[in-house]
Amino acid sequence: MASTSNQSVYRATTTAPVNIAVIKYWGKRDVTLNLPTNSSLSVTLSQRSLRTLTTASCSANYPAEDTLNLNGQPQEIHPSRMAMLPSPKLSTLPLRIVSENNFPTAAGLASSAAGFAALVRAVADLYSLPQSARELSRIARQGSGSACRSLMGGYVAWRTGELADGSDSLAEEVAPAAHWPEMRALILVVSAEKKDVPSTEGMQTTVHTSDLFDHRAKNVVPERMAAIEAAIQARDFHKFAEITMRDSNTFHATCLDSWPPIFYMNDVSRAAVRLVHDINRAVGRTVAAYTFDAGPNAVIYYEEKDEALVAGTVKAILGASASGWEGPFYEKLANVTAPGVSLDQIDSRVVSGLKDGVSRVILTGVGEGPVSVEDHLVTETGEMVNN
Amino acid sequence: MASTSNQSVYRATTTAPVNIAVIKYWGKRDVTLNLPTNSSLSVTLSQRSLRTLTTASCSANYPAEDTLNLNGQPQEIHPSRMAMLPSPKLSTLPLRIVSENNFPTAAGLASSAAGFAALVRAVADLYSLPQSARELSRIARQGSGSACRSLMGGYVAWRTGELADGSDSLAEEVAPAAHWPEMRALILVVSAEKKDVPSTEGMQTTVHTSDLFDHRAKNVVPERMAAIEAAIQARDFHKFAEITMRDSNTFHATCLDSWPPIFYMNDVSRAAVRLVHDINRAVGRTVAAYTFDAGPNAVIYYEEKDEALVAGTVKAILGASASGWEGPFYEKLANVTAPGVSLDQIDSRVVSGLKDGVSRVILTGVGEGPVSVEDHLVTETGEMVNN
Repeated sequence: MASTSNQSVYRATTTAPVNIAVIKYWGKRDVTLNLPTNSSLSVTLSQRSLRTLTTASCSANYPAEDTLNLNGQPQEIHPSRMAMLPSPKLSTLPLRIVSENNFPTAAGLASSAAGFAALVRAVADLYSLPQSARELSRIARQGSGSACRSLMGGYVAWRTGELADGSDSLAEEVAPAAHWPEMRALILVVSAEKKDVPSTEGMQTTVHTSDLFDHRAKNVVPERMAAIEAAIQARDFHKFAEITMRDSNTFHATCLDSWPPIFYMNDVSRAAVRLVHDINRAVGRTVAAYTFDAGPNAVIYYEEKDEALVAGTVKAILGASASGWEGPFYEKLANVTAPGVSLDQIDSRVVSGLKDGVSRVILTGVGEGPVSVEDHLVTETGEMVNN
Repeated sequence: MASTSNQSVYRATTTAPVNIAVIKYWGKRDVTLNLPTNSSLSVTLSQRSLRTLTTASCSANYPAEDTLNLNGQPQEIHPSRMAMLPSPKLSTLPLRIVSENNFPTAAGLASSAAGFAALVRAVADLYSLPQSARELSRIARQGSGSACRSLMGGYVAWRTGELADGSDSLAEEVAPAAHWPEMRALILVVSAEKKDVPSTEGMQTTVHTSDLFDHRAKNVVPERMAAIEAAIQARDFHKFAEITMRDSNTFHATCLDSWPPIFYMNDVSRAAVRLVHDINRAVGRTVAAYTFDAGPNAVIYYEEKDEALVAGTVKAILGASASGWEGPFYEKLANVTAPGVSLDQIDSRVVSGLKDGVSRVILTGVGEGPVSVEDHLVTETGEMVNN
């Protein structure tokens, strides 16, 4: 148990990253155990841009009830989720968990994945449990499926597994960030409309009603998983990009094929799709790849060497209308003013659609998994730190 | 040969209707013969609202070259399409064909289907050929696939057929208009953006690249064809509606799953989808069904008895912002001012999206097939009539 100078309050603090899937998780084959219908694969994003910071603490001085505070707001504790947390039987002290994101929850980023990964990691550290990231990913999976992929850095697969008890449904590192560190991600945050259908509900609608869904899970994804893992090993961006874009499209196709239909992409998302195709066409090779989660935001992957062509063109289009051109990955681009691809190579409706619809960008790249830190969100005497 | 008082100019004139598919045609298994990958089914729309009028004429006095004039514009003649026309071997006189639509071509309605059906019918009449509508549909199919369904009224199936030469790929009447005359169609014409991908090109992109397409054609459509034919026989609007909506969604899902992806629906189309779901939810039964062709326009089917609930609600939403609240099907609705479904039952984004994005409506219903008429577009002396 990690102790402090005041022996009565025990604390452990960790950061955890956001991950953005390139082969999408959609649909559970077992809702209770949270087992997916298909394997998925994601890129862990750098915590220099986006991270959750979570302190798990326990003390005999705390009121008997466990508490959870997220971004300054007390949260209801789901007993079933807490029961999943790693915990030695003897840990009877009340828990106080405090967590905060360094990005707006409303931005539609996968904050629950980072949040649950940080929670699991921090609690395991609090009790000095010996579990590996792989073992912890099995626990995180039960709380929030894609959270399991946020326990590792780099390129991470979540294997659907075959066992009925789900014990082989966990995350595995396909390659560390250092294997292909040039991967960048430009997130276009689309002016938030209320989300169409929450993903937990949406995915089961798809499972039960889409005639195309089953075909994707059984026949399409296994081939794509093998192909994209090979592309990552070979650092073959062209292949990585095409599979990423096609799987995003197939995923949204199964949403549209659901009954009632589910739409996550809107006209601004479509403009981002066309932008990427227009850039790739103008450059004459595949330098950019889009992907969309259960919302309208676009994530555009590219390699650092093509930064001016991709992010530089987006910057020229958005100009001053989008905030977020800043941060640790912005250095090289700060001085770029001309678009990498001439704007007359881009459909004019795309240019106006993005200008009107993108409110913010986040420029980041592949990064590492959770890290233990000393920036505790609970003081030595058990008080919440006010940031 | 239909003759006129001036024996040297022969004329035959016919009207032909537009049809809107409820099971979509998408993809050719044989491009040369124009054979589809799957059967399709459509509702023929009334010619009181939308029709093509075509005069076929021939005369020894005409210049040697065949000519085709569409809506006042001379058209290039595709020799391969002309070669398909029904024609006795002895007809050596030059042809003059004049055609006009009573609706704007730019509205994104399926004008080529009506146009080619009228052409085939008029030429057959010119030569007094004995072919049935069924036989003529085989010819029309070769010129423009879905044109084959415009040779008949009511509810029309296009059987994909099994023979390699395509001789069994033709249209059949599933039920005449009189079997279920209460069917209405409200077309929401969405402010035209340039079309994403022409359908002839788009469908073959889907055939060659979508992993989901084949599954739809082989497994999904055959079941839906049988089910919707049964629904039509039973005049079961609930079943008809659900299959119609689901097949439209599946069709657009295979477009999105194509590579590169094809988007025909936009945010206004999505608003129309939600409107229909909101109306059905508010009423507590399925009173409306949407379908979308290769473009953003919505076609909303409903039964006459539910006119106030469906068209009345659309009218209340669009108010004066859309033109087209007129015509032979408008009578009952002319005095309706209140929405059939209270607008607070409709998502407010849907209301604003439709108000901003729908420029025109067309209110029509199921109707009859081509009709021979005497409103010739060529005078007795062979001159084009100026309308």
